Amino acid sequence: MPELRKDPILRRWVIIATERARRPSDFLGKKKDTKGPVGFCPFCDGNEDKTPPEIFALPHGNRQPNTSGWRTRVVPNKYPALAIEGDLGRQGVGYYDRMNGIGAHEVLIETPDHDLEMGDMSISQLVMILKTYRARISDLLNDRRLRYLLIFKNFGAAAGASLEHPHTQLIATPITPRAVKQELQSALDHFHDKERCLFCDILYQELREEERIVSANDHFVALCPFASRFPFETWIFPKKHAAHFSTSSDDLLNQLAYCLRDALKRIATALDSPPYNFVLHNSPNVMSRARHPGYWQTLDLDYHWHIEIMPRLTKVAGFEWGTGFYINPTPPEQAAKYLRDVKVSFPD
Amino acid sequence: MPELRKDPILRRWVIIATERARRPSDFLGKKKDTKGPVGFCPFCDGNEDKTPPEIFALPHGNRQPNTSGWRTRVVPNKYPALAIEGDLGRQGVGYYDRMNGIGAHEVLIETPDHDLEMGDMSISQLVMILKTYRARISDLLNDRRLRYLLIFKNFGAAAGASLEHPHTQLIATPITPRAVKQELQSALDHFHDKERCLFCDILYQELREEERIVSANDHFVALCPFASRFPFETWIFPKKHAAHFSTSSDDLLNQLAYCLRDALKRIATALDSPPYNFVLHNSPNVMSRARHPGYWQTLDLDYHWHIEIMPRLTKVAGFEWGTGFYINPTPPEQAAKYLRDVKVSFPD
Repeated sequence: MPELRKDPILRRWVIIATERARRPSDFLGKKKDTKGPVGFCPFCDGNEDKTPPEIFALPHGNRQPNTSGWRTRVVPNKYPALAIEGDLGRQGVGYYDRMNGIGAHEVLIETPDHDLEMGDMSISQLVMILKTYRARISDLLNDRRLRYLLIFKNFGAAAGASLEHPHTQLIATPITPRAVKQELQSALDHFHDKERCLFCDILYQELREEERIVSANDHFVALCPFASRFPFETWIFPKKHAAHFSTSSDDLLNQLAYCLRDALKRIATALDSPPYNFVLHNSPNVMSRARHPGYWQTLDLDYHWHIEIMPRLTKVAGFEWGTGFYINPTPPEQAAKYLRDVKVSFPD
Repeated sequence: MPELRKDPILRRWVIIATERARRPSDFLGKKKDTKGPVGFCPFCDGNEDKTPPEIFALPHGNRQPNTSGWRTRVVPNKYPALAIEGDLGRQGVGYYDRMNGIGAHEVLIETPDHDLEMGDMSISQLVMILKTYRARISDLLNDRRLRYLLIFKNFGAAAGASLEHPHTQLIATPITPRAVKQELQSALDHFHDKERCLFCDILYQELREEERIVSANDHFVALCPFASRFPFETWIFPKKHAAHFSTSSDDLLNQLAYCLRDALKRIATALDSPPYNFVLHNSPNVMSRARHPGYWQTLDLDYHWHIEIMPRLTKVAGFEWGTGFYINPTPPEQAAKYLRDVKVSFPD
C-alpha cells in the first residue's frame, strides 16, 4: 500500500510509493521497465488486452469493452501512485502525519492514433477528450474519500512522459494539495473583501490591457500570466465565471477545444514542439471545500477553473527548490506577442 | 533592470530577467552562450582576469586580488538574475505587484581544481568553503534592502549547472521567499504552542528512532526526512539549536565539513555521482523576520538552520507542478539504510 506523509515544517504531503521501492541500482544507467517488444505500444488500437481493463470509453455504442473501435479510452495506470481500495487510516506518528495512499490513478488515452498530437487533432476528437475528462471527474466526485481530482498531461520525455502515445493522466487524492489550498485562500480572501472573483477581476484587467493575451474566442481566453514562472507559460480561462470544470456544457467544451488546440499549436509551431505539462486547475470536491473556513458564504462564486500550460524550456535548479520562486528569462508580454504572431493552420 | 513580479493567486514571486530577453529561437537546438574556447574554464586557477572582479577570496594574505594563489574565490555572476544597484521601486499595477529586481547574485568558486568534487575534498578545503559562505552572508546582511540570502549548489547538468568547475551560488532577494515563509510560520506556530523549536523536537524524535539517520557526529546529524520529496533526499542539521548559519563558530564549521562531506560522498558512492542540488535554509535577515507577526517573542528560538541535499534521480512532471506535492518511489527509511551501509573513504 502506498503511503501519504506530511512534512510538519512545509506542511506539504508526499506520496511514498512503497510498493515499487527503488534501490540505488534502479537509478543507475536509467533502466526502464520492459514494456514488451521495441515499438510495441499498449495504448494503440488493437492492443486493448495489453492494458488493465478499461474504465470508460467514447463513443458510447454497441462496442464490447476492451476491443477496437474506441476514440478515447480510460484505463487504470498499470503502476499506480495511489491505490483505489482501502481505508484512509489517518495516523499521527510522533510529530508526523501519515495516511494510506488511497486514491485513483487513471490513464486517459486521447486517440487510437499513436502519432497525433493535440495541436493537430480535429475538433471532434478534442471535444471527445474533454468529455472524457468531464465524465471521469463526475464519476470520481462520488467517492467521498477523495478530496481533489487532478487532470494533467506530460508531453515529451523531458516533461516526464514515459510513453509516447498521446495520453492524459488523472490522479485523485484524499487531501487537497497545498498549491490548490493557496489558490483557494487567495480567491476566498479576495471574495470576502470585494464579493467578486479574483480570477474574473484579473481577466477583466488582462482583456483591457491586451498585451499578455495570446488568443480569445467567445467563451475562452488564452494568456501568458503576469508572473509567468516559465517562458511561454500559457493559461486558458473560461470568460464566464465557473468554479467546476465538470459543470461545463457540450457547447462550452466545443469552444474550449478550439482555444486549447490553438494555444498548443502556437506553442508547438513557435518552439518546435517543446516538451510541456498542462494541468487542469479545478475546484476541489465539495467535501474538501466545505472544510475551508468561510466557504459556505461564497457559493462557488470565488474560484474559477482554468488550464495551465507549461512548456519545459528551462531547468529548475537549486534556487527554485530552495525558495519556491522562479527565474523566467522571457517576459510574458514578449511571449504573448510571439505566440500571437505565429502562423498556424488546422485540419478543420 | 530585471523585475520581480508577484502572482496574486499563488502569492509567489517570479524574477523576470528582462535584460536577457529570450526569443523562441534561443530555446531551439539548445544553443549555449559562447564561453570562450572549448575546454576553457573561467573559474580555473590562472584565469582570474576572465571573471568579473572578485568580491572575496581565501586565504587572506598578501595576494593581489584577481591573481593566482587563492583557495576559494567569490565573483559576481556574469549573467546576474538580480541587479545590485538601484531602488526597490515597489509598485502596484492593477491587481498585480511588482518591484525592481534588486539583489545580489554571486558565484562562490570552491577550489582552483576543476575536477575536485566536494565529497573528495580535504576537510581544510571544505572548512574554507564554509567560511566563505559565512563571510558572504555576514557581509550582505548589512544591506537593508535584502530580506533573504540563499546559498545553493547545482551539481551536474541535469541539476541546472551550466559550468563544471565546482561552485556554489548565492542569491540575495528583497523579499522572503514563500517556501521560507511557510517554514517560518510552521516553526512559529509550534513555538507559540510549546515554547520549543519544531526542528529540535523533530531531531529528538529522529535520533531516538534512528531508522532515518544517515550519520551523526558530535554536532551534526544527516538524515533522510520523513516526508522526503525525492529518493535519497538528505538533510543536515546542527544538533544544538541555532537560527543563523552565520553565527557558526570555526569549530562548528569544522564539524559541518565532516558531516557534509560524508553525506555527499555516500550519495556519490551509492548512486554513481548523481546530479544534485543542495540548499542552505537559513533564518531570514532580521529586517525580514521582524515583519513576521509574533517574531519578537521568539528571540530566534523557533527557527533552526539546515542544509537540504536533493539528488536528481526522478523527473518532476505535471502532477508535481499542479499540486506542489511529490511522488517518491524510495521510502526514506530504505534510502537511509542504503546510505548508512555504503562504504566510503576520504583523503584525510
